[in-house]
Amino acid sequence: MQMARWLAVLPLVAVLGSAESVNISEQYTGTAQKLIGAALADDEGLKRLEYLCDGIGNRLSGSASLERAIEWSAGEMRNAGLDNVSTPPVKVPHWVRGKESALMVAPIEKPLTMIGLGMSVGTPSAGITADVVVVSDFDRLASLGHDQVAGKIVLFNPAWRGYGATVPYRISGASRAGQLGALAVLVRSMTNFSLQTPHTGTLEYAEDAPKIPAAALSLEDAAMIQRLVDGGTRVRVHLTMEAHREADADSHNVVGEIRGREKPQEVVVLGGHVDSWDVGQGANDDGSGIMATLEAVALIKKLGLQPRRTIRVVFWVNEENGGAGGRAYREMIGGKIANQVAAIEMDGGAEKPVGFGFGNGGPEGFANRHGSGPSHEQQVSPASFARVVEIGKLLKSIEGGAISQGGGGSDIAPLLADGVPGFGVRTVGEHYFDWHHTDADSFDKIVPREFQLNVAALAVLSYVLADMPERLNEMK
Amino acid sequence: MQMARWLAVLPLVAVLGSAESVNISEQYTGTAQKLIGAALADDEGLKRLEYLCDGIGNRLSGSASLERAIEWSAGEMRNAGLDNVSTPPVKVPHWVRGKESALMVAPIEKPLTMIGLGMSVGTPSAGITADVVVVSDFDRLASLGHDQVAGKIVLFNPAWRGYGATVPYRISGASRAGQLGALAVLVRSMTNFSLQTPHTGTLEYAEDAPKIPAAALSLEDAAMIQRLVDGGTRVRVHLTMEAHREADADSHNVVGEIRGREKPQEVVVLGGHVDSWDVGQGANDDGSGIMATLEAVALIKKLGLQPRRTIRVVFWVNEENGGAGGRAYREMIGGKIANQVAAIEMDGGAEKPVGFGFGNGGPEGFANRHGSGPSHEQQVSPASFARVVEIGKLLKSIEGGAISQGGGGSDIAPLLADGVPGFGVRTVGEHYFDWHHTDADSFDKIVPREFQLNVAALAVLSYVLADMPERLNEMK
Repeated sequence: MQMARWLAVLPLVAVLGSAESVNISEQYTGTAQKLIGAALADDEGLKRLEYLCDGIGNRLSGSASLERAIEWSAGEMRNAGLDNVSTPPVKVPHWVRGKESALMVAPIEKPLTMIGLGMSVGTPSAGITADVVVVSDFDRLASLGHDQVAGKIVLFNPAWRGYGATVPYRISGASRAGQLGALAVLVRSMTNFSLQTPHTGTLEYAEDAPKIPAAALSLEDAAMIQRLVDGGTRVRVHLTMEAHREADADSHNVVGEIRGREKPQEVVVLGGHVDSWDVGQGANDDGSGIMATLEAVALIKKLGLQPRRTIRVVFWVNEENGGAGGRAYREMIGGKIANQVAAIEMDGGAEKPVGFGFGNGGPEGFANRHGSGPSHEQQVSPASFARVVEIGKLLKSIEGGAISQGGGGSDIAPLLADGVPGFGVRTVGEHYFDWHHTDADSFDKIVPREFQLNVAALAVLSYVLADMPERLNEMK
Repeated sequence: MQMARWLAVLPLVAVLGSAESVNISEQYTGTAQKLIGAALADDEGLKRLEYLCDGIGNRLSGSASLERAIEWSAGEMRNAGLDNVSTPPVKVPHWVRGKESALMVAPIEKPLTMIGLGMSVGTPSAGITADVVVVSDFDRLASLGHDQVAGKIVLFNPAWRGYGATVPYRISGASRAGQLGALAVLVRSMTNFSLQTPHTGTLEYAEDAPKIPAAALSLEDAAMIQRLVDGGTRVRVHLTMEAHREADADSHNVVGEIRGREKPQEVVVLGGHVDSWDVGQGANDDGSGIMATLEAVALIKKLGLQPRRTIRVVFWVNEENGGAGGRAYREMIGGKIANQVAAIEMDGGAEKPVGFGFGNGGPEGFANRHGSGPSHEQQVSPASFARVVEIGKLLKSIEGGAISQGGGGSDIAPLLADGVPGFGVRTVGEHYFDWHHTDADSFDKIVPREFQLNVAALAVLSYVLADMPERLNEMK
């Protein structure tokens, strides 16, 4: 009743910017505290993540372990009591690394710490042996031109200016150097900290460039070659890579729901990606994302909460080297896109969460950090941003509700491109890029309390978005 | 003349504890400042270290690269103008790693990040496949006994309690498990921080135990196996190691001097070890030690300083897996041990120096951290300790002169055991054990300014010890 009075005056006080604050707080503080308490006392999510890491392992698109992870995930969704659990089919690229190595053969013989880039072609079986040309950026490469690049191995060794600003050398370096006649490409690993730690990640070949093999070097070995070349020493490298693509493979997204009590056709979707690179355990990227989003929904269910709208958890497939899962989900939604009221992705690791990026996936967003986000500049409305800030205040006790511009994630980018409001989990981000796409992305890096805080934040956000009377994307 | 008066009253005021302070300060502040200034402006030492790392590489006893490093080092000593440069012969063990791998074959197939321990025997060529028993300490191993250990691979996964307290599992684990019938040993790497970083290091076989192969695992993979076993899962590992010993090899220490102007027969010796493990570049362990001690002496020479006694720089060979160089140097000194007035070792990396451990190589000392120091408990005299504290004050401007109990180093341990006062460089020690005995011990980890500070501290200490009127080991 008191609620009803509040609702009656909303159109007026909304202009003053304070009514919604009271509204969200009044309606959801108790529920939020329950969800937070449950998340911080829960170890089911951690146990699932441990099993995914240790009992299944990494899970590249096309691998048997990925299909095992998908089947097991669907079972865990059912065990958690979710409705409508399904594994809709998705065709995914099947890239295989094979054996690979890089050996410096001059000035001295030294094995280099390398890892082939995802989707790279291989070398001839005898390998490629060539002098190394080191460049700091694409301008320098262009200034060298065909004369000084053709027949060489190009090492891209740019300064680290953050992931988003540096990753173009990993993604486009092979084609840029291939266009000038290079035989192969090496690139410094996409990190700013290393213990001889090579980082893989996908490349993208341009249509109009020769496809040449490409691998990442550890920071140490890239720096060594840089020093030698700077000192006037000729460096030669022998590179062998068996990398190749096989026929596209049959795979699946994994979907489960809590059906909404009033508007089940309206959906708040949250999730991460079930695939990983073929090294490490994919613990932070993105085992933690799928297991934290599942656990958030499992706890909502466990507490007997049924929101007004449907909450759907999705484990998208093939985020790392193609994005087929995110596109397939968008296709599955088809013309009913207006019923997707919000999309939340967790794909930045399970360090202590600080809040959410919300909006258009723009320059500040996670998608941008990953170099593959949507390019549109659509803005969320001021009213919906203000509402999200109010929801964030429900996470004050765990310091996890700061709302910033940007947001999204690779898998939900196709939804955001069609106007769905998008969220990306934001963490302190202290170590994520130390582990990202490496053998060191393993379960030991998960701090249980920090994982639980992520579950808490996801549970509160997704529940309130699904339960509050208004739809976020109709707030002007 | 003023000096003569001071000396006359010394026996009295020494008791008051302040006369030596004035004395050292008066005599050496100017020279110390000159040496510090020269060290901080110098890049020759860094250039040499860079060449050693990039142009020669790692240098295990018995390897061609070690002999190349030794020959080049002697040349650099001559280039620096040192007297009596020589390379006295030393027989060293020749251990060869060969190919090696560890594969977890159950519950899932997963390559493990491993590195064989130095001096380990190999496996049969077909490898060893066995279930893994995990123990946290030797007591737990003993309590399992032959019944539960025989036929198994034992993983020692003790908690990290610092290098000195944890390294016994690496050194003695193979024999302790071998005595109970184990087929092979795995041990967590000797570090507290890892990005899938395996750490080698020597083991020592007991006379009365079967020699079984032993390798270190990364912290990540040791933790994974621990988790699986704790959860009741049977873990099986397939280990292959080609490790073996060949006939002892001919090698050398490297020696150079500044001859003393008054008492050339009395010697202050300083140095580090020229060998390294067969991974990384041996930059901090111990390229920085040999290049910093050489540079300290080179700068004394360059400034035209000739101390009262001889300063001798020695690059000892085979510190890592045998200690033959340190023993050979002691044998070379023979009956003239009383003429060794002090011995200084730098073998803890080139992080920012804080001072020196001085004394008996006891519990606080470097030797102890390395688990292989002298066991005697001989104490230096209070007067000599007070004198060293005064010398340390000359390093106040670089905060590098704190004197603590302990000191020494593996290579000078045979000298200390016969009464020579010993010094070990002490640094902030923030990251040394992250890199120690790994592929990540590379030149990029050297911070130029910190290396220069080490040179400064070594130059001042060695010069004053060689030049001050009294001998340190005759101060009662």
